[in-house]
Amino acid sequence: MTLLPIALDAMGGDNAPAATVVGACRAVRAGIPVILVGDQDALRPLVPKGVSIDIVHAAESVGMDESPSAAVRAKKDASIRVAARLVAEGQASAVIGFGNTGALMAACLMELGRLDGVHRPAVITTLPRSDGGQLVVLDLGANVDCKPEHLGQFGVMGHVFAQDVLQIKDPRVGLLSNGQEDGKGNDQVRAAMPVLEGMPIHFVGQVEPTDALHGACEVVVCDGFVGNIMLKSVEAAIGVAGKVLKEEILRRPDAKLGARLIRAAFRRYRKRTSASSIGGAFLLGVKGTVLVGHGSADPTSVMSAIKVAHTAVQEGLSDHIGAALSEALNPTSNDDT
Amino acid sequence: MTLLPIALDAMGGDNAPAATVVGACRAVRAGIPVILVGDQDALRPLVPKGVSIDIVHAAESVGMDESPSAAVRAKKDASIRVAARLVAEGQASAVIGFGNTGALMAACLMELGRLDGVHRPAVITTLPRSDGGQLVVLDLGANVDCKPEHLGQFGVMGHVFAQDVLQIKDPRVGLLSNGQEDGKGNDQVRAAMPVLEGMPIHFVGQVEPTDALHGACEVVVCDGFVGNIMLKSVEAAIGVAGKVLKEEILRRPDAKLGARLIRAAFRRYRKRTSASSIGGAFLLGVKGTVLVGHGSADPTSVMSAIKVAHTAVQEGLSDHIGAALSEALNPTSNDDT
Repeated sequence: MTLLPIALDAMGGDNAPAATVVGACRAVRAGIPVILVGDQDALRPLVPKGVSIDIVHAAESVGMDESPSAAVRAKKDASIRVAARLVAEGQASAVIGFGNTGALMAACLMELGRLDGVHRPAVITTLPRSDGGQLVVLDLGANVDCKPEHLGQFGVMGHVFAQDVLQIKDPRVGLLSNGQEDGKGNDQVRAAMPVLEGMPIHFVGQVEPTDALHGACEVVVCDGFVGNIMLKSVEAAIGVAGKVLKEEILRRPDAKLGARLIRAAFRRYRKRTSASSIGGAFLLGVKGTVLVGHGSADPTSVMSAIKVAHTAVQEGLSDHIGAALSEALNPTSNDDT
Repeated sequence: MTLLPIALDAMGGDNAPAATVVGACRAVRAGIPVILVGDQDALRPLVPKGVSIDIVHAAESVGMDESPSAAVRAKKDASIRVAARLVAEGQASAVIGFGNTGALMAACLMELGRLDGVHRPAVITTLPRSDGGQLVVLDLGANVDCKPEHLGQFGVMGHVFAQDVLQIKDPRVGLLSNGQEDGKGNDQVRAAMPVLEGMPIHFVGQVEPTDALHGACEVVVCDGFVGNIMLKSVEAAIGVAGKVLKEEILRRPDAKLGARLIRAAFRRYRKRTSASSIGGAFLLGVKGTVLVGHGSADPTSVMSAIKVAHTAVQEGLSDHIGAALSEALNPTSNDDT
């Protein structure tokens, strides 16, 4: 098959458009085709000589301070909407944005729409586990109030994601909870248990954050409110931990030596514990591959995000999710029987 | 006033009864009266010569593998129930247990009962903040499904706790959420906003875990499910962070030097980042002071927990909570008007 380019909203992110253009040009040099979407007069001068990269002009963009859905609805030619439209029109394989997460989601829902049978698209990323592996977590905020059947679908989406993007053959999927014994969990968790047990996945039951981050499973599902609290708690705690440990090392009598010793170690530490190793979060359940990168992305992070999105496209992530959800729905579906 | 002793369930915890007895005897030497509750034949030989400490015999105890409420109901003479009864009968000022948390809660609800006007007792502890302070969090698991008015009461209880136990004059209280802008939060959070706004506390609105752990407030309230997820996510992430950083320091060329350098730093790190600095969690909203210590407590932790409980008693924590809740209820109460 011909490899379609990845559409990149070059206007979004703290360091845009310099970081997005430089990162995209590196990807092009590495053999991954990319289309830059944004203000062509701003983008063109940033492209290094000798790099051949397409630019699709978009006159408008969505700022971090705008109401995402209202801004996206009003601005038909916002760069993020134009980028999503390229995927909808079959001119691009995936869309990546580093700007306003809500705007990217709104643009993709408008331009791409949901996969057949998907109740709710979900945001998914990975967190660092103590055993060196990655923990896939969804939903992270797209759906703050979920029904049991939404959590069931998240289980299937997480399963496919772990297979396609992390190359885990038979990922164990857990339901995030406050314990694992019978009777634990809140009303929502208890109602979701039988739904997840009926899904064609390796479901391991209720899992606490502690066990999940220490390797009890590869995927945890939860509603977007709880997932967002977990994600931000882990990120913040890693920040607190690094700060405290640095202070304690530097207060030792051999602090100068310590400073030299820990500099490189802290660099690797930040790399290993950053959420996430996949360069951002994916929006799953829409018709296309969508990656939401970190707003703070530098050219290296932009390049990594493009690589991860490229892998997802090559593996056929979006099609696999559609197929897995149809299969999961089929036994109880009234549409096709 | 005569200082009543603290009733300690000496049979609970991973290192009981040795750790509980040794810790209690240290507290007695430091001038804090303690009553040991448990099997007197097991406890008596562990008390060092020259220490005068009362032992109240309890023939039974609740194991970690038993169903807490069933076991507590069936065993009238379980050590944890006898300890709680001493408080109910006015013979002790507080009860501390290091065993099964559910059993301690069940015993206290049975023997002490709730304070007038309290909808739901709550479990409260502190987490380490990046600015060196402590973040008070409640509820942590006593109530996995909460109504808005429960969250309102948690706000009042957290406010009083921060004043009495952490000596913070005007604690800022936040509502744990996935963002702070209007429209963020799930249904529960949005419904709780006006309730918390009506409480006689310094309420600062919705707060994300990131901001809370970096010092945006001194207290966050949430339902017990979400609080438990946050607590365990923070604990696990701190564990992951410490492990990764240690690995990275030790893989440097000067690893031996690194090992020597970081040993003491890691000891202080663990102390500073352990949840929690108050030696465990309090159960608030019952008629009496109740502290749930860590199951892994050694004599030093037992001694610290006794000290913290002693402070809470001296400050009048339980009475203050009762008074503050009556005051908060009063404007809308139908009972006294």
